[in-house]
Amino acid sequence: MEVTKLNDRDFQITKEAIKVEEVMNKVMDRNAGAVNCFIGTVREMTNGKKTLYLAYEAYVPMAEKKLAEIGEEINQRWNGARVAITHRIGSLDISAIAVVIAVSTPHRHDAFEASRYAIERIKEIVPIWKKEHWENGEQWIGDQLEKNSYAEKPIKEEGES
Amino acid sequence: MEVTKLNDRDFQITKEAIKVEEVMNKVMDRNAGAVNCFIGTVREMTNGKKTLYLAYEAYVPMAEKKLAEIGEEINQRWNGARVAITHRIGSLDISAIAVVIAVSTPHRHDAFEASRYAIERIKEIVPIWKKEHWENGEQWIGDQLEKNSYAEKPIKEEGES
Repeated sequence: MEVTKLNDRDFQITKEAIKVEEVMNKVMDRNAGAVNCFIGTVREMTNGKKTLYLAYEAYVPMAEKKLAEIGEEINQRWNGARVAITHRIGSLDISAIAVVIAVSTPHRHDAFEASRYAIERIKEIVPIWKKEHWENGEQWIGDQLEKNSYAEKPIKEEGES
Repeated sequence: MEVTKLNDRDFQITKEAIKVEEVMNKVMDRNAGAVNCFIGTVREMTNGKKTLYLAYEAYVPMAEKKLAEIGEEINQRWNGARVAITHRIGSLDISAIAVVIAVSTPHRHDAFEASRYAIERIKEIVPIWKKEHWENGEQWIGDQLEKNSYAEKPIKEEGES
């Protein structure tokens, strides 16, 4: 059996539109019987408030490092899993794809579990910030768990895009 | 809010290769914040046995009706969900896509749950049969739950492809 080496390009922050099949193809494997793709998209209505568009910013080198770390965690927990994650930054219109997670595993249960794990971990540990542009104003949502709200963009570090 | 009408073409049996993004695009929605795609692929090794290829057959009209029924069930259980399912039949090589399920929902938890529900229901109620072509022989696996094995193809009805 081939040793699965994590490829850095499997964990990407991009300013371009994300193609789901490109992310999925990175995890295709002769011994996969299941692939789960989670796609996060920009929703128009939230609690009766209308979003016009979202802006995502990231501290890119750290964000990609953290995405790869999530990949390592999944490899340790789910035997035979292959993972790829791409997160977009910049200005995103309604229905645009913000993030794609692809996980392949020999059996379907693990693909669902690992994909779910990945999105929860992204919200926990990856430094990506979201600014909501509502019909009547704008607001930095702050961290990905949306538990902290910032009056303005929280930090500005070298390397941040 | 628009009334979501189930489109028959959202539930398809096909002999052609399935494109994941085509199935996914059927469920894109301004009020979706999450899409879960489950992709079933042909795995090479199962319990140390090497599969050369699989052959799927279906009683097509009934299979499409049952896929649509699963869509209705999901619409009833998960508010605001949109579902599309395409299952391929015929001879499938290793890594070929046998089935794609796409579910969009406003929030991610429901997308995962409904997608998982769909694949389990497909295996329970949709009349599709799988023939395994092993390195050293072949066998009808029988029903999708793989609990029943048939010495030969189980039934032949009018309309079956």
